[in-house]
Amino acid sequence: MTIYDISEKAGVSIATVSRVLNGSSNVSEKTKKKVLDVIDKYEYTPNAFARGLGLNTMKTIGIMCADSSDLYLAKAIYYIEQKLRTNGYDSILCCTGYNLKNKISSMNLLISKKVDSIILVGSHFICESEADNKYIADAAAQVPVMLLNAALEAPNVYCVVSDDYTSMYEATLQMIQSGITDIVYFYNSASYSGKKKLAGYRAAMEEHGLFKGEESMQFYQGSHEDIPAMTNYLRQLCQKGVVFRGIIAADDTLALAAVKYARESRLQIPKELAVIGYNNSMLAHCCDPELTSIDNKLETLCQHLISTLLGVLGGSEMPKKTVFSGELIKRGTTL
Amino acid sequence: MTIYDISEKAGVSIATVSRVLNGSSNVSEKTKKKVLDVIDKYEYTPNAFARGLGLNTMKTIGIMCADSSDLYLAKAIYYIEQKLRTNGYDSILCCTGYNLKNKISSMNLLISKKVDSIILVGSHFICESEADNKYIADAAAQVPVMLLNAALEAPNVYCVVSDDYTSMYEATLQMIQSGITDIVYFYNSASYSGKKKLAGYRAAMEEHGLFKGEESMQFYQGSHEDIPAMTNYLRQLCQKGVVFRGIIAADDTLALAAVKYARESRLQIPKELAVIGYNNSMLAHCCDPELTSIDNKLETLCQHLISTLLGVLGGSEMPKKTVFSGELIKRGTTL
Repeated sequence: MTIYDISEKAGVSIATVSRVLNGSSNVSEKTKKKVLDVIDKYEYTPNAFARGLGLNTMKTIGIMCADSSDLYLAKAIYYIEQKLRTNGYDSILCCTGYNLKNKISSMNLLISKKVDSIILVGSHFICESEADNKYIADAAAQVPVMLLNAALEAPNVYCVVSDDYTSMYEATLQMIQSGITDIVYFYNSASYSGKKKLAGYRAAMEEHGLFKGEESMQFYQGSHEDIPAMTNYLRQLCQKGVVFRGIIAADDTLALAAVKYARESRLQIPKELAVIGYNNSMLAHCCDPELTSIDNKLETLCQHLISTLLGVLGGSEMPKKTVFSGELIKRGTTL
Repeated sequence: MTIYDISEKAGVSIATVSRVLNGSSNVSEKTKKKVLDVIDKYEYTPNAFARGLGLNTMKTIGIMCADSSDLYLAKAIYYIEQKLRTNGYDSILCCTGYNLKNKISSMNLLISKKVDSIILVGSHFICESEADNKYIADAAAQVPVMLLNAALEAPNVYCVVSDDYTSMYEATLQMIQSGITDIVYFYNSASYSGKKKLAGYRAAMEEHGLFKGEESMQFYQGSHEDIPAMTNYLRQLCQKGVVFRGIIAADDTLALAAVKYARESRLQIPKELAVIGYNNSMLAHCCDPELTSIDNKLETLCQHLISTLLGVLGGSEMPKKTVFSGELIKRGTTL
């Protein structure tokens, strides 16, 4: 639905619609009512139209991410910035950290800077409790909010996600089918996406009667880039008597630590220890053998998020949620 | 120098100074002149004071970086954001890419958003030609500009840098002293900091009569994270007949590619090929053996940059340039 449709349905010229949205006094009350009734009926806010007409816009998009030093988030920001620039939009980024209070204050900051939309990068912005997600719905009452790899049902919120559940389910299945049954899941985030991944692993293990409960799911709480600490965690796990011949990691960094652990313990990869990572990042090429990893099509996701956003800003009807599939990229750490 | 000093030197109360800076009409012309004379004498602009008093400030700092997907820059942004938040400042980031036109437009965007200062992260913002650096001086005429690991002499511009020249000089010296004489320098950036590093390597080689000209300095032009392409570059270098027993890389990613090349070519590290990286990033722990790398004290630099900025915004006299030393962290890739 565009400005043209409004004009047609209200039976007035495009210039008249524009004058109404502009708040011009050169329009009769009767005509104004006609236009606003159509807008009301189709549940579009005049703001969205004004933006579509290039009125009241700074051509600036706000981006929020929890932590720009996370490889995956940094890459996403890079793609989004590039694609916005190509389309004539500037962007301003707030790194919020993981604390809800800071997320809310960054959101308010961006809105005060009159951005045309806010993009939330990564799944750290969705909280367990619905009440804690109110700040997103509140922001969406003012500008469209786009979620990259997270989902929230609310008016004016649009989501583009990778099907992390299925990707992890299928990767686990492949490892089981290669003959490995003692598989530990190694993760460090319980975000929206983190939970989907864990559920995919668990479903595949349970279906084959291989799930061993708590000891199968190892949660590492330290810094997301401290590889020596992660390696140490796995060494201790082995010392505690947990048996594992495969490790499926929620992130390439964790997977790299597993490869390092295998080397130190003189375990042959993939024969004695198989490893699968997630994100298919540059880290996959850093170890020897190179890492099998799940590519969750980040660039495609970002590309689609921007097209959706441009559609919304242009006043078109756009899908509220789009889901893409990931792909397992096989390299040397799996059989 | 603070608001208290002005009050003392002008012989009026702090509240009066505040009223003058506020433009309040409740001050006699005579008193107003006294205050402004002191400010004039000490060459402070009322703006800087107003900011120190919390007037006219959004408590928001603009950050610019060329590419947030670069590990080093991403880490710097992370530290800077954290330290600003701790001090009650919000921050907004623009990723500009490497093109001058986009750098200028991002700078203008930030100034239009009424930021209190602009921080330029990394040395990609300083151009060869002085005319191309005018946009930085222009911005500094409006708000203080802080440079992280770059230098420019201009009013209201403050620089915090790591002594990349000396770090690289000493690392090269250490490799020479360990008995290796065929050392290739492997780099991918000719930025301000990139040139300093190259010069440090070259000086150490020349002093020992080991510099072989062009073939010693290998410039890789591809993607900054495409490790397989970097490895391939080194393979071709060897095929061309260039002899090297040591590689000093301007970045850990390039060094990692050197380690990978050695593995593929079945060269023993460090006996047959020694490698030194730069930045002491998480990548240093990714390879086997772990990477010897130069720590350029990024967190210290960021910490100091923020204290300098807070001093400037508070109206204190702060150093225009501060230089920190780096440190070689020895691990398994050197003798």
